[in-house]
Amino acid sequence: MSNELHNELKKEFQLERMVLFSDAVFAIAITLLVIEIRIPELDHKTVTDHQLSESLKHLIPKFIGFLVTFMLIGIYWSVHHRMFGYVTSYTRKLLMLNLLFLFFVALMPFSTGFYSEYAGPELIRQQLKVPLTFYVLNFCAVGFTNYMMWLYVTNPKNKVAEPAIDPLIAKLAKLRAFLVPFIFLMMLPIAYLTNVLFAVWMPMLIPIMTRVLRTRIKKNHSESL
Amino acid sequence: MSNELHNELKKEFQLERMVLFSDAVFAIAITLLVIEIRIPELDHKTVTDHQLSESLKHLIPKFIGFLVTFMLIGIYWSVHHRMFGYVTSYTRKLLMLNLLFLFFVALMPFSTGFYSEYAGPELIRQQLKVPLTFYVLNFCAVGFTNYMMWLYVTNPKNKVAEPAIDPLIAKLAKLRAFLVPFIFLMMLPIAYLTNVLFAVWMPMLIPIMTRVLRTRIKKNHSESL
Amino acid sequence: MSNELHNELKKEFQLERMVLFSDAVFAIAITLLVIEIRIPELDHKTVTDHQLSESLKHLIPKFIGFLVTFMLIGIYWSVHHRMFGYVTSYTRKLLMLNLLFLFFVALMPFSTGFYSEYAGPELIRQQLKVPLTFYVLNFCAVGFTNYMMWLYVTNPKNKVAEPAIDPLIAKLAKLRAFLVPFIFLMMLPIAYLTNVLFAVWMPMLIPIMTRVLRTRIKKNHSESL
Amino acid sequence: MSNELHNELKKEFQLERMVLFSDAVFAIAITLLVIEIRIPELDHKTVTDHQLSESLKHLIPKFIGFLVTFMLIGIYWSVHHRMFGYVTSYTRKLLMLNLLFLFFVALMPFSTGFYSEYAGPELIRQQLKVPLTFYVLNFCAVGFTNYMMWLYVTNPKNKVAEPAIDPLIAKLAKLRAFLVPFIFLMMLPIAYLTNVLFAVWMPMLIPIMTRVLRTRIKKNHSESL
Repeated sequence: MSNELHNELKKEFQLERMVLFSDAVFAIAITLLVIEIRIPELDHKTVTDHQLSESLKHLIPKFIGFLVTFMLIGIYWSVHHRMFGYVTSYTRKLLMLNLLFLFFVALMPFSTGFYSEYAGPELIRQQLKVPLTFYVLNFCAVGFTNYMMWLYVTNPKNKVAEPAIDPLIAKLAKLRAFLVPFIFLMMLPIAYLTNVLFAVWMPMLIPIMTRVLRTRIKKNHSESL
Repeated sequence: MSNELHNELKKEFQLERMVLFSDAVFAIAITLLVIEIRIPELDHKTVTDHQLSESLKHLIPKFIGFLVTFMLIGIYWSVHHRMFGYVTSYTRKLLMLNLLFLFFVALMPFSTGFYSEYAGPELIRQQLKVPLTFYVLNFCAVGFTNYMMWLYVTNPKNKVAEPAIDPLIAKLAKLRAFLVPFIFLMMLPIAYLTNVLFAVWMPMLIPIMTRVLRTRIKKNHSESL
Repeated sequence: MSNELHNELKKEFQLERMVLFSDAVFAIAITLLVIEIRIPELDHKTVTDHQLSESLKHLIPKFIGFLVTFMLIGIYWSVHHRMFGYVTSYTRKLLMLNLLFLFFVALMPFSTGFYSEYAGPELIRQQLKVPLTFYVLNFCAVGFTNYMMWLYVTNPKNKVAEPAIDPLIAKLAKLRAFLVPFIFLMMLPIAYLTNVLFAVWMPMLIPIMTRVLRTRIKKNHSESL
Repeated sequence: MSNELHNELKKEFQLERMVLFSDAVFAIAITLLVIEIRIPELDHKTVTDHQLSESLKHLIPKFIGFLVTFMLIGIYWSVHHRMFGYVTSYTRKLLMLNLLFLFFVALMPFSTGFYSEYAGPELIRQQLKVPLTFYVLNFCAVGFTNYMMWLYVTNPKNKVAEPAIDPLIAKLAKLRAFLVPFIFLMMLPIAYLTNVLFAVWMPMLIPIMTRVLRTRIKKNHSESL
């Protein structure tokens, strides 16, 4: 193997390591979510099917929380995936931004567990806003760190993506990266000013919204040609 | 390195990332199973070997559950392995199907723990069906999502596997992917209509069944030549 | 890229997936060990440094257990590493043997936790043999499955390692793979017939023993030339 | 593919396995940190937002501990990253040093949890030094094992990094690797001789210090040219 090829492969491997390390953190965070769902503990001598199905019913908010966060982390993983498809070298700053981003991803199992622990009937009865606020802020921290990474990667001055990303693609990627956590943040005024129940369903809008955005982006893109 | 080779390697790397991310989720889910087996807690001052072996005896359903699910997830990992051996590019839909599939895989440690928690003598005495039902439905969700992925991957219109998969191989892969969760689902009428004990042993049939199917597939394949 | 090169890379990638999946299970099992070390819970209002250092003292058997098992799994990981350095293709049987091997590796955090939970003063006072027996049997299952994999891989009939492994290297690899769990198994008669304390220190012999064996192997190897 | 290229790729893959295995241990250790932050358990029937925000306040030391250790492990990961950028082959000794290094990394979630569990108001009131000492010693063990790895890798006699690392780079890497745990160790006399509160904030100095060092290294490097 020639030396240049060797060095290029080596450099690529270094970049791949950062990417694969991130993947591992994503994969662990996504799988650890399930640990927060505790197995119902009932008296083994007298347990009945009725008691067991009742205890499963109490876990429904946990299952929904697990599914929603699994999909949200999954989507962010695929965005990370796409972003690093452009990256050809890395800097210390990108590494630090990436670590901070992964920190907030790794915190999601806690936030999801905390939020879904108190998302049963007590949520509406007592109008609990603290768990929702914590969850929303954690998710927004994931979203805005991701946005900062897009700002960094798409800036040609940083020379981490070469050849430079098409300005239109860059603009739309940044727009999307900003909009998702921004809309999520809107859950908070809705929860605090109206009823917490109205806010709870908003994460469901994300997949619809990203689909709309994607269609728009494609349309804009073809118009701009 | 030429640009084309570079791009091709980049594209392959993107596909590899999805595959390796899936592998990580599989590996974590399979290893997390053991977390649900709690270490027996006895009074350190008076504990005897007899007490310890008694407490291990109570864990036997957990060990069996761990082994069976470990092997089932392992088999699905190798099927996933084989499926992505055909995939040459990926789409957003494949990514989403894959995420949903991984979600159900990640839920297996909970289902296994829940099922095996109540699979001691109480299972037969109280004819508990809820834990078994939950476990079976979770496993079937894994199986049918896998089936949907085979449908998607083997469909030449989606252009994710090129050159197109041999129609006979595709047909048999889909048949097998459908049969495993279908037979598993049969545990439910057996448990509800007869005795739950008859259903419990059915997962043991899976390895035998897949072996029979594989022999049949090979036979059919050579006949068709 | 030519088609042959593409296929060869694809085939290698398939083999790499099995290897990397195994690595992930190893890495998770080795890191999960620490989860079994619970943080001492004392009354926050009255806790003193003396109480905290006392509670850490009680954890000493856990730390030792964690370190020993970490190193043992680490050594088996490097043996697995070396074994797959010879493997050039894989079969369904190798995959199944590997899964069974990984199952026993994944069980090690439980065994280590169980053994070290009852390895304080009560071990000697009450001559507890059950936790030691469980730990030894788990470790031997890891060792003997590894031995079976060496038998399979070094057998030229199976065609998984080509060119065939040098018969002398194969013989010595198998000898070593057999001896480690065999010597470990010797802990049981020693514990049951004499004093459990004599058996407890035996795992410490493994690093010394493998060093002796390695030196011998090298000597034999040079003599045979 | 020619045989030499094949062998070289095979050898590189063996080295990559060690690197990726280390990455996985890093990723798991970093993500497991969050497991030590338990979800507050309050009576679901009477829970109020006030109680929930109070219980979150009690978790603040845990969140800070999680963030600090996440960043510290992240920095060590990137150092490991850079070190293995020089490594071109590996020996049994490097493997063992690496395992020992990973052992101390894997212990960090426990140390962080133990330290931050008792880092609330009781820390200052009761002047607790045991949790801080344990945490500092664990971190120093990570740092000094890393230093030993740099000593090993930069020593041309060991032939694990070829071509040999530039002596100036080697010297500065070793200096930095030594200084970080050394300064950390200084927390202990400060805590024992003055007030434990003065020591607690020292980890915050690490990022500043490494930045200063990096600037110095660059300056020295350009002066030496």
